[in-house]
Amino acid sequence: MRTQVAIIGAGPAGLLLGQLLHKAGIDNVILERQDGDYVLARIRAGVIEQTTADLLDEAGVGARMHREGMAHDGFELCFNGGRHRIDLSGPTGGKHVVVYGQTEVTHDLMDARKAAGLTTVYHADKVELHDFDTTKPWVSYTANGESQVLHCDFIAGCDGYHGVSRASVPASALSLYEKIYPFGWLGILADTPPVAEELIYSNHARGFALCSMRSPTRTRYYVQCSLEDKVEQWSDDAFWDELRRRLDPATAEALVTGPSIEKSIAPLRSFVAEPMRFGQLFLAGDAAHIVPPTGAKGLNLAASDVRYLSRALIEHYIEKSEAGIRHYSDTCLRRVWKAERFSWWFTSLTHLFPDQGAIGAKLQQAELDYLVHSEAARTVMAENYVGLPF
Amino acid sequence: MRTQVAIIGAGPAGLLLGQLLHKAGIDNVILERQDGDYVLARIRAGVIEQTTADLLDEAGVGARMHREGMAHDGFELCFNGGRHRIDLSGPTGGKHVVVYGQTEVTHDLMDARKAAGLTTVYHADKVELHDFDTTKPWVSYTANGESQVLHCDFIAGCDGYHGVSRASVPASALSLYEKIYPFGWLGILADTPPVAEELIYSNHARGFALCSMRSPTRTRYYVQCSLEDKVEQWSDDAFWDELRRRLDPATAEALVTGPSIEKSIAPLRSFVAEPMRFGQLFLAGDAAHIVPPTGAKGLNLAASDVRYLSRALIEHYIEKSEAGIRHYSDTCLRRVWKAERFSWWFTSLTHLFPDQGAIGAKLQQAELDYLVHSEAARTVMAENYVGLPF
Repeated sequence: MRTQVAIIGAGPAGLLLGQLLHKAGIDNVILERQDGDYVLARIRAGVIEQTTADLLDEAGVGARMHREGMAHDGFELCFNGGRHRIDLSGPTGGKHVVVYGQTEVTHDLMDARKAAGLTTVYHADKVELHDFDTTKPWVSYTANGESQVLHCDFIAGCDGYHGVSRASVPASALSLYEKIYPFGWLGILADTPPVAEELIYSNHARGFALCSMRSPTRTRYYVQCSLEDKVEQWSDDAFWDELRRRLDPATAEALVTGPSIEKSIAPLRSFVAEPMRFGQLFLAGDAAHIVPPTGAKGLNLAASDVRYLSRALIEHYIEKSEAGIRHYSDTCLRRVWKAERFSWWFTSLTHLFPDQGAIGAKLQQAELDYLVHSEAARTVMAENYVGLPF
Repeated sequence: MRTQVAIIGAGPAGLLLGQLLHKAGIDNVILERQDGDYVLARIRAGVIEQTTADLLDEAGVGARMHREGMAHDGFELCFNGGRHRIDLSGPTGGKHVVVYGQTEVTHDLMDARKAAGLTTVYHADKVELHDFDTTKPWVSYTANGESQVLHCDFIAGCDGYHGVSRASVPASALSLYEKIYPFGWLGILADTPPVAEELIYSNHARGFALCSMRSPTRTRYYVQCSLEDKVEQWSDDAFWDELRRRLDPATAEALVTGPSIEKSIAPLRSFVAEPMRFGQLFLAGDAAHIVPPTGAKGLNLAASDVRYLSRALIEHYIEKSEAGIRHYSDTCLRRVWKAERFSWWFTSLTHLFPDQGAIGAKLQQAELDYLVHSEAARTVMAENYVGLPF
């Protein structure tokens, strides 16, 4: 088989890239190790930046998001027993975010790919990338037990942190940067009405909590937990009790609880691999970088990589210019590091860090107090939250 | 001897308080353990916030500062081989800072106190504070070998971190918050022309550096150093060489060196003691809190305490209201913690923290890149640097 761009991974990054390339008339094939249902079952972030929403529109898959997604032009910070609203639209010239689950984005992209009749190979096993330091890269894999070869001009590694793409690069060619946080997020999904119309990020002496949602009838709540905790130790009641304790009294009172339909613990990590291009191989999204989930930059950063990569490939094929390809890594990384900084800062501001001691908590309170009372500081928060300009 | 307000410590905080009270017709006596020359020989910060300058004017001691001090409406950040200016006046409605040594402020205050014929007891030994939890506090001390007693209505503890005032409070009544930084500042004073018109804060892979000044002919330079370093290990040449390495090439080239007239190493610390009032005893300035020197908040924060305290005492004596006294601690501390946050953040942004690993340096670079390119972020920096509004 031969294509112009071989895309590794059928998550939102790979699917979005495929769609944007297809729109520009560039042929692409996606190889995915799992099946479609597995990909759809992954529960991830649900806050779409304005720039990501624009890109989904550009790819022609934004209709349902606009119909069913919830545009939010603010969120709330809860600390010291009170709630304080952060306006997003005012300080950013009218920008907002859209609350719409990553699962739904993936669904829309899968539907569009199917409708366009594009090739996605699910259950692609033993994927190996070859000769990407030459102009004739190829990918080998097995499907239905048979060995296959995919010849291509470029390989796009959209296969996440554990994928084969980054692992195919010699270790000596990579600079890795990592920070592990001393806690996790225990999250549940429930079919209950959201406690508030907007998201609530809570800084509390017992630890961070987040009140989020997927729709007007489905909620997603999180509490900071120990990395030693096991999901089985947390009954639904224990979760709701702990969440209530970390909210201001009025919010705790208003919380509607119900049986969880999903419950899981995720670690928090900051990770960047540099560079993001190796000859004809490009890394995009989680394959190159991970952010802690505070502020929901993960999917948005993947979309930003895909935006740069699709433009670079379109420049190559249509405008016969290599500039986008040559600058891909540097351009992505400048934006990646700013989002890494924001995610780390927002995490640092809102979580309990036991090793920071009593002064750590006091400095957090001072920063939250400053933030909600300074127009400039609220603007900094807002412009990062909705996504920095390209 | 009897007075209305006994002030412990004849540094800038105690002297400024004495002057403001005197202007309002409130009698005060200052007790100082050292002599005047010793106090004047302490070399400290030299950046006066707009609000501090206003307070010095109010105390009637601002004339020489306006004549000889240098108004700065910006400073520079040096990183990644380039210099970037941070405008202070534009984003803050025309505010600026004045570069004028703390020694000079102290000098002006001492001259004014002498001219007003107010009592300052130098060489006051064995100072002890008594009965400040009653309405009749008193201070015992020895002068010229003789025991003395000073009766008063209030005691103002302006005697610094190591002074007797905070040490007189039972440990159980104090909450202490502290952070020690894993490095120090090696500073020199030299009679050389400044390398630039404004201050330069440099973030470099070898560590922080600061190009500051006291006058158009006297410079103050610093490099981050190890806490194990001894001043004797640092020749003038070694200092200048290290400073040059931490600046961008053009600045390094322009640096004029010369023999040091002072050279010292200072540790960096964040420290706050809560509360700041115990009955009739008030703590002000370094007696209650220490900031790392990055951003020069120490003297300005002491002046802010003194502003609140002088107003509280004037309210008490003139307006017969206890509100200012009752709120003194909370009002001060809210501002103190914001300055502590800023000083900690500015230190974190610009210094080398070996234990933060490679990702720590990358996050710093991302934040500096964001800062110099975001109007909102530059406004946050500027409004904190010139001093937050009261």
